[in-house]
Amino acid sequence: MALTTKTNTTTKPKIVALAGGVGGAKMAAGLQSALPRGCLTVIVNTGDDFEHWGLHICPDLDTVLYHLAGLNNPEMGWGRQDEAWTVLGEIERYGGEDWFRIGDRDLALHLRRTEWLGLGLSLTEVTDRLRRLLGVPSAILPMCNEPVRTLVHTDEGDLPFQHYFVRRRCEPSLVDLSFVGADHALLSREVHKALKEADAIIFCPSNPYVSIDPILSVPGLRDLLRQSPMPKIAVSPIVNGQAIKGPAAKMMRELGEVSSPLTVVDHLGDVLDGFVIDQADAALSDAVILPALVTDTIMTDLPSKQRLAQEILAFADSLRPNPLANPTPTPTD
Amino acid sequence: MALTTKTNTTTKPKIVALAGGVGGAKMAAGLQSALPRGCLTVIVNTGDDFEHWGLHICPDLDTVLYHLAGLNNPEMGWGRQDEAWTVLGEIERYGGEDWFRIGDRDLALHLRRTEWLGLGLSLTEVTDRLRRLLGVPSAILPMCNEPVRTLVHTDEGDLPFQHYFVRRRCEPSLVDLSFVGADHALLSREVHKALKEADAIIFCPSNPYVSIDPILSVPGLRDLLRQSPMPKIAVSPIVNGQAIKGPAAKMMRELGEVSSPLTVVDHLGDVLDGFVIDQADAALSDAVILPALVTDTIMTDLPSKQRLAQEILAFADSLRPNPLANPTPTPTD
Repeated sequence: MALTTKTNTTTKPKIVALAGGVGGAKMAAGLQSALPRGCLTVIVNTGDDFEHWGLHICPDLDTVLYHLAGLNNPEMGWGRQDEAWTVLGEIERYGGEDWFRIGDRDLALHLRRTEWLGLGLSLTEVTDRLRRLLGVPSAILPMCNEPVRTLVHTDEGDLPFQHYFVRRRCEPSLVDLSFVGADHALLSREVHKALKEADAIIFCPSNPYVSIDPILSVPGLRDLLRQSPMPKIAVSPIVNGQAIKGPAAKMMRELGEVSSPLTVVDHLGDVLDGFVIDQADAALSDAVILPALVTDTIMTDLPSKQRLAQEILAFADSLRPNPLANPTPTPTD
Repeated sequence: MALTTKTNTTTKPKIVALAGGVGGAKMAAGLQSALPRGCLTVIVNTGDDFEHWGLHICPDLDTVLYHLAGLNNPEMGWGRQDEAWTVLGEIERYGGEDWFRIGDRDLALHLRRTEWLGLGLSLTEVTDRLRRLLGVPSAILPMCNEPVRTLVHTDEGDLPFQHYFVRRRCEPSLVDLSFVGADHALLSREVHKALKEADAIIFCPSNPYVSIDPILSVPGLRDLLRQSPMPKIAVSPIVNGQAIKGPAAKMMRELGEVSSPLTVVDHLGDVLDGFVIDQADAALSDAVILPALVTDTIMTDLPSKQRLAQEILAFADSLRPNPLANPTPTPTD
């Protein structure tokens, strides 16, 4: 499994993961633990970002950051472990919005980010500062620096993503999605470089509509993926007709689709070279129009994340035009 | 003592207090407890305001607000009682500034204020929202809505006020003070109305140089005081040659003055009609060029604050052109 080599050789694979929320963060943590230090770059959805309490909140970036730093809250899925809630209680006293719950530890990050953005740093620079301060060895890149906002068109009207997702608990029925601002977004130098240099690109088991599609909406990004000769593999977020977490299955049904891994392949197929489905859906593997890996995709703890990551990396290696058994050395790390 | 009438008559006195930090907040709390509900307006120094953690911090406004709401921290003198410090610890993790300590409960107020200011509300409107939410019956007015910043010229160079006061613990020697932005400040409608309608104006025992002078630097405010026929009484912040709290005495010496109540009279005398000195300085009372009240000015608890306030209000009443024994009814409350 050349892509997971942990020995100190001259070769280090460069793996890029595309990630959204909790499923993406778990997969990213598995890849980080399966790879040599510094080999992973995670490109993260920022379509969920919004302003709250006057601060710039990046839910998916933070979920990935906290998972990769080992600071995530395993019970809640989002936010920090050992969290405290003093500020939220006071915000309620002052009549502030409390439907999006920000804990005290989490809040400190939003304060620093907002302050740094206000000083003129890009979201990419701010995110890199934060991951270094938390000792995260992997690069974490926002999909772009410009604001792109997922707007959810529902049977009850248009809702900004967090209002749909958190405030309304995904109850309104999905009609369509827009990524407002995507036309004006730019492929950042860092995202461009990561995708150009990637030895493999993994689409984490994130919601295809609201986690992966916003990333693909950044102008130029989809073309870059299509042109890349390296393996691009998606992990199904749908297992046995259900989403492991979140509204992906519900959204599929509301869009008139079957909640099935095959719907994910249909949706993302033009940029993929391989697909990973859960063993519970083994019967569907023949219907996947791409090379498929069938395995246990349920990530309950670090060993299960790491094992899945190793299997995916080996699968990717098998799809490479020139498998890394005889890799070319990279000049710098 | 007509000015302290607590009975439900048609007359309610209108008392204005000018206040800075802790001494001002204690005096304001005493006046609030001695007066009928809604009779007190506190005009507060905002020369100490600054940006910290990307938030708009108003230390003197908050000290007054917390004292009048009964939420102040009696041990620290500033900030909230029952305070928690989770966010500060995390800010330190992210390399943020920790020399100005913001507690979790206190932070919520700064967040709300900053968010409201960002939405276009004036500092006067924001402060009024906050005091209503905290159930404070007195009006609390920032001295103006525009930024006026106390700049401390020291033997070690110029320092923004909080850097001098908190970060450097007032160690550098004072040379002079500037109130940057005062030329562009405007007398707010609310401050103008409060001063015009006041039955008495009390200068709390706040630092004359960095609490009272910034208020007097607002264009038009000093003239309004001079023109007012109502009693204007200052309470000495200097007792027995020392400041009860803060650097007032040290500043006086560094400016070549004697640290004495008489120096306060010299400094503020042109706008005063009466002066209150502590019984420890009774021997100086003959040297005061204004009518003087000699009493115990040390405020250790609510009863001592309330008693001092009552004595000051009675003293003010004795100085009124038409004492309130036969007051004219106010048409509205």
